[in-house]
Amino acid sequence: MTSTASTTPVGASPMPLDASRLIIERTTNPQPVPSASDRLSSLGSRCTDHMITVKWNEQTGWSVPKLEAYGPLTLMPTASVLHYATECFEGMKVYRGFDGKLRLFRPECNTERMLQSATRISLPAFDPAELQKLIVALLAVDGPKFLPNSEPGTYLYIRPTLIGTTETLNPQTPRDALLYIVASYFTIFPEDSATGLKLLASEESMVRAWPGGFGFAKIGANYGPAMLAQRYAKEKGYQQVLWLLGEDGQVTEAGASNFFLVWRTRDGVVQIVTPPLDGKIILDGVTRRSVLDIAKEAVTLKEAGFGDIEVVEQKFTMQDLLEASQEDRLLEGFAVGTAFFIVPVDEIGYQDNVVTFPGEKGKDGEHSAFIKEKLRGIMLGLSQHEWGFVIPEEY
Amino acid sequence: MTSTASTTPVGASPMPLDASRLIIERTTNPQPVPSASDRLSSLGSRCTDHMITVKWNEQTGWSVPKLEAYGPLTLMPTASVLHYATECFEGMKVYRGFDGKLRLFRPECNTERMLQSATRISLPAFDPAELQKLIVALLAVDGPKFLPNSEPGTYLYIRPTLIGTTETLNPQTPRDALLYIVASYFTIFPEDSATGLKLLASEESMVRAWPGGFGFAKIGANYGPAMLAQRYAKEKGYQQVLWLLGEDGQVTEAGASNFFLVWRTRDGVVQIVTPPLDGKIILDGVTRRSVLDIAKEAVTLKEAGFGDIEVVEQKFTMQDLLEASQEDRLLEGFAVGTAFFIVPVDEIGYQDNVVTFPGEKGKDGEHSAFIKEKLRGIMLGLSQHEWGFVIPEEY
Repeated sequence: MTSTASTTPVGASPMPLDASRLIIERTTNPQPVPSASDRLSSLGSRCTDHMITVKWNEQTGWSVPKLEAYGPLTLMPTASVLHYATECFEGMKVYRGFDGKLRLFRPECNTERMLQSATRISLPAFDPAELQKLIVALLAVDGPKFLPNSEPGTYLYIRPTLIGTTETLNPQTPRDALLYIVASYFTIFPEDSATGLKLLASEESMVRAWPGGFGFAKIGANYGPAMLAQRYAKEKGYQQVLWLLGEDGQVTEAGASNFFLVWRTRDGVVQIVTPPLDGKIILDGVTRRSVLDIAKEAVTLKEAGFGDIEVVEQKFTMQDLLEASQEDRLLEGFAVGTAFFIVPVDEIGYQDNVVTFPGEKGKDGEHSAFIKEKLRGIMLGLSQHEWGFVIPEEY
Repeated sequence: MTSTASTTPVGASPMPLDASRLIIERTTNPQPVPSASDRLSSLGSRCTDHMITVKWNEQTGWSVPKLEAYGPLTLMPTASVLHYATECFEGMKVYRGFDGKLRLFRPECNTERMLQSATRISLPAFDPAELQKLIVALLAVDGPKFLPNSEPGTYLYIRPTLIGTTETLNPQTPRDALLYIVASYFTIFPEDSATGLKLLASEESMVRAWPGGFGFAKIGANYGPAMLAQRYAKEKGYQQVLWLLGEDGQVTEAGASNFFLVWRTRDGVVQIVTPPLDGKIILDGVTRRSVLDIAKEAVTLKEAGFGDIEVVEQKFTMQDLLEASQEDRLLEGFAVGTAFFIVPVDEIGYQDNVVTFPGEKGKDGEHSAFIKEKLRGIMLGLSQHEWGFVIPEEY
């Protein structure tokens, strides 16, 4: 697939994405910092003062990146993205730490995944490190104002986006694109909600991703088509869909997040288990990867509660989950992702069954609580770790 | 699915889509009619002077439709369509007939399908008849100039489009949308090309659609993800992908068109065969439907060459196709769609095999030529038929 990722015309030498060429045009109309209540509005997507934009053309390559006032984009009605979903994005957070520092969490995971998504959706390639530098540049300018030092523990959600802009109704690889980065206060789900998630298992008529498809990529085509099942779940009193695949009801993702279980096998072994990445069905989540890493480390170090457990990426079905529930072997269920972070699952509706997780509703289980605290500590500067990337706040 | 198609807030009464409210604001900057060579440029998507736009909001419903100068759209960087592919469209043609009239071909099939696509991608519902009236209004204004009476046999491609415009990074049903209609000279593939199509059968790592997915809907999510395989096919010297499904290599679609075969069964029966619509894998093409109808009618009337044949919608695999080729039972292959119309398939590449269709390359087979002429006659006013919808050219 990589061999077809970039088509460079013979004789031309398109410019690479180059953050060092960034031009800064500060807004003349700075916005007030939203109040805490405005920030939590689930309807909002209040952005900061600025955004970064970079145009791309097949012949000329990446143009000069611009940091400019946040504002509307102009697209022709025939723009590729509006018809053929030539679009991909990333979701990351920048945190104001308790040590006063502004931090990204493993940003290279996001920028590398963005390149993979771009390749899958026939959008141009770029050096992920340059994308990271642009993200850092935006946050160096808007971070200090919108995540003030006086409010440790707060964060912004960053959305790098790449869209095909070629004016053509011909469904072909775009010859023009626009990369842009915005930062917003958007929250999908309050992390500190009083209740956990109620998931409704998807029906066979609603399949999110399939073998040979594109479920692993962060492209628009994985999200819009999922909204119908999502709305159906809400109408039934659930918050998210637990996406199943195949006749045996293989568990894949929870909403737009990765899904984890803690259960006891019939042999009495406690396992932290999540569906594997092979088959390219599910998103290679940064939080998912980090949860696995932290859990494995805890096992190695024999930290409290982790001494004898196994951390495994393996397929499991709704039937496995049902049986574990009936045999009292189910310990914890949780969804993980950048937007959600780590949220306990209270119950899963599946056909005529309801699987209820043990413990207090909305409360993290023992293992997920441990992992969550470790990760939160890294994100918020309570513990120094290579996963925390500190943003310089002068630019 | 229909029950979740529109969510009307209690107490509110959103306006329905109403073409009678159309406001006409003619352009002050009319464009020259492109030359014949400009029109055929495959890169172009030259639009006519005007477009129609209608905004929608969950609370207020459909706003006043406007016929206005063709020009750029303004979208916020957080608009739903740019992240989550909340978009659907239709493709239709308007023809200048040899009887001097401007005609659409079965427009109600397109407007009804657009409603189905909108529902599938969580965009608002509307009365398809009102959409048709808006399409007619645009063509009543731009048709006479861009498809002059002096050029019978020419056509424009019409693209009704619906996009989710809500400013939110929350992947949920859009609360705002924009419907627009543009008309362009865009041609995907010259109908009168000297050669037919060379199709490359898709590999298992590239699957277009899946049971429980959304392959039947004309939504962006079916197009962007297909571009990678499409480009791979071009690099291998093929024009389009023949999309297979499943381990047995079930044939589904050709590029973004429907696929037909004419072959002789082992019992000696000549069949016109195309994959069935069940499973919602493939697009319910208007041309597909029309080809089937014309063929069935020809059988009933025992027209030349159709007396003893069967017209069937049934599953078949690449293996079936290979065997038919090896046993000299393959008669014709053709792709059908609004953009392509009816194009003969010359050959199909599949793994290490090449299936070659008999007859002169690029020349329609006996049965497809018959059907094509019938349909062309209806489209171009050579024969009067209920499928031809005449546009009034004064507004």
